[in-house]
Amino acid sequence: MSITTRAAASGLVLSKPVTFVTGNAKKLEEVRAILGQSIPFQSLKLELPELQGEPEDISKEKARLAALQVKGPVLVEDTCLCFNALKGLPGPYIPRTSKWFLQKIGHEGLNNLLMAYDDKSAYALCAFSLALGPDSEPITFVGKTPGKIVPPRGPNDFGWDPIFQPDGYEQTYAEMPKEEKNKISHRFRALAQVKSHFLEAGYNFQTDNV
Amino acid sequence: MSITTRAAASGLVLSKPVTFVTGNAKKLEEVRAILGQSIPFQSLKLELPELQGEPEDISKEKARLAALQVKGPVLVEDTCLCFNALKGLPGPYIPRTSKWFLQKIGHEGLNNLLMAYDDKSAYALCAFSLALGPDSEPITFVGKTPGKIVPPRGPNDFGWDPIFQPDGYEQTYAEMPKEEKNKISHRFRALAQVKSHFLEAGYNFQTDNV
Repeated sequence: MSITTRAAASGLVLSKPVTFVTGNAKKLEEVRAILGQSIPFQSLKLELPELQGEPEDISKEKARLAALQVKGPVLVEDTCLCFNALKGLPGPYIPRTSKWFLQKIGHEGLNNLLMAYDDKSAYALCAFSLALGPDSEPITFVGKTPGKIVPPRGPNDFGWDPIFQPDGYEQTYAEMPKEEKNKISHRFRALAQVKSHFLEAGYNFQTDNV
Repeated sequence: MSITTRAAASGLVLSKPVTFVTGNAKKLEEVRAILGQSIPFQSLKLELPELQGEPEDISKEKARLAALQVKGPVLVEDTCLCFNALKGLPGPYIPRTSKWFLQKIGHEGLNNLLMAYDDKSAYALCAFSLALGPDSEPITFVGKTPGKIVPPRGPNDFGWDPIFQPDGYEQTYAEMPKEEKNKISHRFRALAQVKSHFLEAGYNFQTDNV
């Protein structure tokens, strides 16, 4: 908050475009689409260690490490799927664990993990962290979407989307039209906060033309 | 192997005692007890990133990172518990995941993960990696003990020992006398290889008296 306020007051000048740390061109597109063209973004794939801990702490630490490497403003993203009956597992400690579980045991295997429980509730979590530079404390934006784990329904082209049915909907993420999903998704909710932050902070970017 | 052979031939001189990277005094004791007094050991707690990948690769990489920090010979250790019905999960990608699962969902929760499967088989895996210095390729020693996951039996003072029953035994790790467990445990099997390696290699240690 204090950084937000200071930045808003000063219209903080950043020396470089914001580097979105990802190896995934589609994610950069999505970030650009949601954040608009006002913020100059570039993407870069960095090898960052997979950290452990609470999602927000992991995200902040990744942003710190990335800003040290990039020597400029960075945005990092992590996503995970958390089952309430399993106290948040498989996802919370290392975001990527949800992905490994999916790769190893598939949609059926993920459903099977809950066989012993009546409680099939879960939440999808997305955390973005923004560090303005190597010496700035990162700011974290968390989006959460509650739902439940169901047998897979819908196209199987995006991770665990077929087995996650958000609360208040009869469709899984995979069955929902993209526009519909993007209104309620964990990633959208986190990005909406990132967007508000940029609007509020009114960063200025030094460009070659200045 | 090539390092073993070279070391054996040369009686390689190491400039420092071997640093066993652990924050756990009991583990150092166990390593000393099994390896004997011939090899000078010291322990050090290092903050190493939790890496992901296959257990052997993780172990090697941790040894590399530790040797860079210590600037001398290091030994690192990782342990995990892997369920066959879950294709090796929860343990193989990040050794510590087994520990988180235990902390979060307990012995009953770990049993419940297999509720959907008849196959309760599992294995306990321990990997030690030895790096002789910052520029040496680490050598890895893996010990595996096959068994099955059972409802908890025996004292509850050491991790997942109460739910792991090794093949050929009627008792869980927790129920077995320590001497018995230490003859067949994954850690013992890995350490036995470490010990053979030290005997074969015949390292010499530079001490202050030399």
